[in-house]
Amino acid sequence: MVQPATQEPWLEIQSLLAVGDAAAVEEFVERLASSELSLAISRLSEDERSQLLTILPSKMAADVVEQIPNVQAAELFERLDAVQAAAIIDELPSSEQADLLGDLDDEDANAILRHMDPEEAADARRLYHYEDDVAGGLMVTEFLQIAQDSSVEQVVQELRANADEYSDYDIQYGYVVDQVQRLTGVLRMRDLLLARGQTKIANLMITHPLSVPDHAPLEELIEFFDSHGFLGVPIVDPQGALVGVVQRSAVDEAAADKQDLDYLKSQGIVGGEEIRSLPTWLRAKRRLSWLSVNILLNVMAASVIAVFQDTLSAVIALAVFLPIISDMSGCSGSQAVAVSLRELSLGLVRTNELLRVWLKELAVGLINGVALGLLISLVAMLWKGNPYLGLVVGTALALNTVVAVSIGGLIPLILKRFRIDPAIAAGPILTTITDMCGFFFVLGLATLMLDRLV
Amino acid sequence: MVQPATQEPWLEIQSLLAVGDAAAVEEFVERLASSELSLAISRLSEDERSQLLTILPSKMAADVVEQIPNVQAAELFERLDAVQAAAIIDELPSSEQADLLGDLDDEDANAILRHMDPEEAADARRLYHYEDDVAGGLMVTEFLQIAQDSSVEQVVQELRANADEYSDYDIQYGYVVDQVQRLTGVLRMRDLLLARGQTKIANLMITHPLSVPDHAPLEELIEFFDSHGFLGVPIVDPQGALVGVVQRSAVDEAAADKQDLDYLKSQGIVGGEEIRSLPTWLRAKRRLSWLSVNILLNVMAASVIAVFQDTLSAVIALAVFLPIISDMSGCSGSQAVAVSLRELSLGLVRTNELLRVWLKELAVGLINGVALGLLISLVAMLWKGNPYLGLVVGTALALNTVVAVSIGGLIPLILKRFRIDPAIAAGPILTTITDMCGFFFVLGLATLMLDRLV
Repeated sequence: MVQPATQEPWLEIQSLLAVGDAAAVEEFVERLASSELSLAISRLSEDERSQLLTILPSKMAADVVEQIPNVQAAELFERLDAVQAAAIIDELPSSEQADLLGDLDDEDANAILRHMDPEEAADARRLYHYEDDVAGGLMVTEFLQIAQDSSVEQVVQELRANADEYSDYDIQYGYVVDQVQRLTGVLRMRDLLLARGQTKIANLMITHPLSVPDHAPLEELIEFFDSHGFLGVPIVDPQGALVGVVQRSAVDEAAADKQDLDYLKSQGIVGGEEIRSLPTWLRAKRRLSWLSVNILLNVMAASVIAVFQDTLSAVIALAVFLPIISDMSGCSGSQAVAVSLRELSLGLVRTNELLRVWLKELAVGLINGVALGLLISLVAMLWKGNPYLGLVVGTALALNTVVAVSIGGLIPLILKRFRIDPAIAAGPILTTITDMCGFFFVLGLATLMLDRLV
Repeated sequence: MVQPATQEPWLEIQSLLAVGDAAAVEEFVERLASSELSLAISRLSEDERSQLLTILPSKMAADVVEQIPNVQAAELFERLDAVQAAAIIDELPSSEQADLLGDLDDEDANAILRHMDPEEAADARRLYHYEDDVAGGLMVTEFLQIAQDSSVEQVVQELRANADEYSDYDIQYGYVVDQVQRLTGVLRMRDLLLARGQTKIANLMITHPLSVPDHAPLEELIEFFDSHGFLGVPIVDPQGALVGVVQRSAVDEAAADKQDLDYLKSQGIVGGEEIRSLPTWLRAKRRLSWLSVNILLNVMAASVIAVFQDTLSAVIALAVFLPIISDMSGCSGSQAVAVSLRELSLGLVRTNELLRVWLKELAVGLINGVALGLLISLVAMLWKGNPYLGLVVGTALALNTVVAVSIGGLIPLILKRFRIDPAIAAGPILTTITDMCGFFFVLGLATLMLDRLV
């Protein structure tokens, strides 16, 4: 009565690919949940991955591509030949076509574009020139466009006639244009349902529709959807012509992606998202680019210690407290950085409000500096029985906590003001400054009180 | 021709509140973008905030509450009296009612519930008992419910008759139930548009509709919307009765909130989201709870240094390298933690795949360990002219880089397996272990080679 253990999905895919059973692969992949699918794909070899996308019908391969993370999708397409890649990309929504092509190098992207359906390729080329995180890069070109002089009946008939095509769209609104493609209104599908057939669209539509320019940045779109309950917004070019629609979900997704990248960058994954199925050398090289900057900053900071070598030789116990002060100031500073980044992203602080942030951090820094300073001076006194050692390390930690929260609170604002990415730069700048100050406070104070310490 | 500088929005609100001009406040607030509104509210005093919500009509106060971050909204309601709070909460969508009430303490929440519209309160009470991040806590109870034995015509008439009520809903689907409220189908509004009036809903609806149980966790909902293109999913109780609908946007938002909190937790903001308009003592206390754990861990790690005091006195130059090794191992380890957390959230790794992760990290750790080790040994040799000092610190850093990426890669998996929140715990565990190992490697190796170093 022993049940055989279910085979891991990637092993199943591997054996189905090995025998080349296309129908069985298709059926199996269709049944997998998206998380199982991502996992399975990451465990296939490069050859197996290309084989998988090739063996599936393009439509289904496109579904697979839509379900897996972007970084994984780009990895998949790198090895595929241009004809097959083009067939799959033809089946993707326009904004994802452009995203994916944008993640490939120009040569690969152009080879694929040449083999795509000409109409799809024209759309993709148009979108491909927009940055990923502006309205033009996030919009889709599949939407319901309605001429303002048509009638309800005509629109309903058109919808019925082309139900197949439209079933791929998310239709809650129709976008109404005049003869020169200028956006003049939006039409709720609900209103179409409730209106009489003879009604002219121009009389039914909501006039003066809100729209967003095609080069508007992600922040403007986030703001737009925060302020308005809509599920989509029409995008217009500088001439006012309707060029696409950005869905709320695309903005949510782009915002989440940006946040993910910011987190990764703050932790030193700076060369682009890393997944462990990427080649080892690439992963090592990307991580090292960050580490090598950090080690230089660290050497710079630690050189403060070298200056005070005589004091340190005289009171070797101080060496124990140097890493503690360095780490703790890093912790206090990171908290302040995190709060500033969060307040910036919530719009609760402006980049020029340095004084306000500093005063708020100063208050917290004084309380926590005194608390942590007392704690560490207690440890020092208990260990060495010398109250002056406690006084030196306690005072140094208290002072440096105030420095750390001040720097930590202000640096994201300053970096953002100078258009430097705070997610990447705040951490290293913070720890370099707080290390230098911390070492200086401990060893400087100790030098002043040297006769009490030895 | 000098334009007067535009007044800051909160100053404007303050002066309008001071003269009690309700209409002007309303008009002014309506024109503000959501980010300006958040900023303005955070700059008002507590009294002014309650006054603002009181002076606005409830419907508009609810709009304000919907536009600002959750943590700010809860802060706002804490001072409001229950009658006014209830009037505002009555106007919110059901899932936000429950969220907001859940953020207040039980006493306040119950006082407000007593003053709410009985029907709204009943809904809110029902939702309030669900955890925030399960299907029941994310669902709305405002949706279009259709009896399966009605006809297209009847539904359209019902829609027309109650157009006002339904205009508040996001209607793309109707959810079809039988006589005992069991979900039997879903109906696309588009199909309603395209069908003949006599058609029975039971014949038009999509049967065997997908649904999610009311206690399903957020992860299951994320997975659901990843695998299916729907904008909403019906939620059923254990008896199969339709109890609500979870919108895709609610899941996206909850996922983003969770990510934000995870980031904050990883940076030591562990007591709940912090904004700088919260009271100083509360902010200091919450931050200190984290710092005090860290300082104890730091003292523990640094005690390794104390054990090797004699070696350190003999080769004082080593004291310069201790903080460098500690910081650099922290950096290498954080990269590995970030990649593991990311792979976990993308479903690209399972919590039991320790060996796979370790081998992948080992490869990167060896490469980067050698690179960083060479770099630091070069610095040591150039500084002191002693190749053995370079050998000691270089070897120590190389070894500790391998330790750091191993611990960093594995710890999130292990913590998640034991259901401990990796966002909070991974950082402190990582730095404690890598500090201890790093100090031990440097000072242990130095002790072995002491005669070459002095």
